[in-house]
Amino acid sequence: SDSKFPGEVTTIFSVMSKLSQQHQAINLGQGFPDFDCDPTLIERVTAAMQAGINQYPPMPGLPTLRNAIAEKIHKAYDSAYDAESEITVTAGATQALLTAILTFVHAGDEVIIIEPAYDSYLPSIRLAGGIAKPVQMELDGNRYFIPWDKVKQSITPRTRMLILNSPHNPTGTVLTTEDIQALKDCVRDSRILILSDEVYEHIIFDGQIHASMASDPELKTRSLIVSSFGKTFHVTGWKVGYIAAPKLLSAEFRKVHQYNVFTVNSPMQAALAEHLSHSRQHWELPAFYQEKRDYFRHKLQQTRFELLPCHGTYFQSVRYRDISDLPEREFAEWMTKKAGVACIPMSAFYQQPTDSGVVRFCFAKRQSTLEQALQRLQTL
Amino acid sequence: SDSKFPGEVTTIFSVMSKLSQQHQAINLGQGFPDFDCDPTLIERVTAAMQAGINQYPPMPGLPTLRNAIAEKIHKAYDSAYDAESEITVTAGATQALLTAILTFVHAGDEVIIIEPAYDSYLPSIRLAGGIAKPVQMELDGNRYFIPWDKVKQSITPRTRMLILNSPHNPTGTVLTTEDIQALKDCVRDSRILILSDEVYEHIIFDGQIHASMASDPELKTRSLIVSSFGKTFHVTGWKVGYIAAPKLLSAEFRKVHQYNVFTVNSPMQAALAEHLSHSRQHWELPAFYQEKRDYFRHKLQQTRFELLPCHGTYFQSVRYRDISDLPEREFAEWMTKKAGVACIPMSAFYQQPTDSGVVRFCFAKRQSTLEQALQRLQTL
Ligand SMILES: CSCCC(=O)C(=O)O
Ligand SMILES: CSCCC(=O)C(=O)O
Repeated sequence: SDSKFPGEVTTIFSVMSKLSQQHQAINLGQGFPDFDCDPTLIERVTAAMQAGINQYPPMPGLPTLRNAIAEKIHKAYDSAYDAESEITVTAGATQALLTAILTFVHAGDEVIIIEPAYDSYLPSIRLAGGIAKPVQMELDGNRYFIPWDKVKQSITPRTRMLILNSPHNPTGTVLTTEDIQALKDCVRDSRILILSDEVYEHIIFDGQIHASMASDPELKTRSLIVSSFGKTFHVTGWKVGYIAAPKLLSAEFRKVHQYNVFTVNSPMQAALAEHLSHSRQHWELPAFYQEKRDYFRHKLQQTRFELLPCHGTYFQSVRYRDISDLPEREFAEWMTKKAGVACIPMSAFYQQPTDSGVVRFCFAKRQSTLEQALQRLQTL
Repeated sequence: SDSKFPGEVTTIFSVMSKLSQQHQAINLGQGFPDFDCDPTLIERVTAAMQAGINQYPPMPGLPTLRNAIAEKIHKAYDSAYDAESEITVTAGATQALLTAILTFVHAGDEVIIIEPAYDSYLPSIRLAGGIAKPVQMELDGNRYFIPWDKVKQSITPRTRMLILNSPHNPTGTVLTTEDIQALKDCVRDSRILILSDEVYEHIIFDGQIHASMASDPELKTRSLIVSSFGKTFHVTGWKVGYIAAPKLLSAEFRKVHQYNVFTVNSPMQAALAEHLSHSRQHWELPAFYQEKRDYFRHKLQQTRFELLPCHGTYFQSVRYRDISDLPEREFAEWMTKKAGVACIPMSAFYQQPTDSGVVRFCFAKRQSTLEQALQRLQTL
């Protein structure tokens, strides 16, 4: 009766994964790879455990990992973060996001989110007592874009935060230089913090450059940047991510972080530090996933699904109106049960009921899995 | 300026560990073992990773681990929990505590805590917008006890939760049958939830039986029980714990949990499931730590510290007034720098400034570490 989330039970990702399992479907719903991580990474965890790295690491994370993260950001975005005071290792990106919101959003504060929006943003804002102000992305032909004029109109004196996500889950949109310019115009002279969900930073296609908030000196000072090793190194179950933010913001973040998880799995941290410093996997990720994207899109063109763009992430959204008139959620369930392929309805990423006849597939799968799924999708 | 925790920076545990390192002291401050975990446990993590258990586990935890936890609770406390709906794996006990508080404490709700209190309770209550109502334990000669009449007097219509911790950090007190009776009298006919921090459940001495909230059918229905594998299997850095609670409470908890961490490190979960089912380590923990406690206490009697009781946990509190007139925090710093032994000032566990001339030592250390520390303490 006094539940903070009356009605809501589990995330759509859990629901669809469970349904997929029940019907022995191919799970292209929840975003995770069905292939193994680099065996070297596993060896590194074993080595760390055998070396006795099994007790509490320092609260903000192992120094080796924070240094490796700072170096990576520097290489990728030509941007300097102080590993000691500006980088904090988190128990995955979701924990970083909730903690950042709990840290900076006070009761009654407004937070602008861009819909479709990852499903944890809204409940996190509600837990902090904040008010979510959704702005919907628009479709120009086949291109999703953020209507910056509407973002600007949503800003009030109570706006405390703007949550961005690029490359964008579920639409695969990436921020352009025009977006960055418009964003700067929106927030200049305000006290708005940018919470930038960049977990797909290394999954970006066609030679584009990821527009990290770290790259822009003006935006950087007001940004909290979240990333995830789960996405980058194919270990979504390890639950290690990080947040990078200027010193004062990081200090406030850590005050809350330490009372949430205190610190993060130490052997995994040690292994990821080694891996980030010595492997080239993250730099090769765009090519690795682009091959999968190209194959998946090519084959989908031979089905009755209509492709939407995919510039980044391992998600491909499609229109299915030529196949069915069902609402998205029902279509997703029907496809899981009848065609044996699970997906995520686009409406799951909106606060208000919507229905654009779109579902999302995850293509972070082995070639054989994609082939089998595509065979099934071709029958629709 | 609008910081949720103005002033506070890092927990006392981080502060003292850092100071200890700087002065190459023996760290008997922050609670963690300086010995290795069972090598079999490490092998089990490696096996899990090699078996490909590296992606998202189910949101409430791996079924194998939840089953093993339910079995353990059943064996230990003759109490049945449904693994599917009543047990949730968490990223350590701290995350379980904050999440439970965020789930059930609404703005303006009151939460009774017993001081000295673990340092995360109070900030967690504040983050939820709740109001902490501390009740101080009292000393009868050398025995710490909870004054239940004062607990009863603190209850108001706004009281939503009572946080208990047995075996108790830092005093080593354990709840007795009389405490349980008094507790039942306090909460009967109320809507008060009990958040029971039982992370030291397997570290209890002299043949005493841990009074888990799981053991009492009346209390169980209103209790959320938190435990931690870090404490039980000597892997505080792995950050895996759990919460056990009746179905309806667990369902609400999970709604918030899934937006906090979503889920917990999968290879560690798989390994802990095996270990909990097949090792006897947790059943042998009382004897293992009692030997350390007995040695530590015996030798401390040959110093100028005055021993307080220790019925459970791996903490020993002592009075130091024969040695120094310094306030607790200053004494802890002085001892770290001058005697080369770090400890935790008791005042860190109180909301209001207090000073009883007491500090806490952690004796979860190798025999050689304890010997060396005791030699140093004997010089004081
Ligand atoms: C945390 S489960 C969801 C995984 C994910 O990021 C997605 O599928 O969008
Ligand atoms: C989370 S660090 C503190 C460890 C601990 O439980 C203690 O020292 O009391």
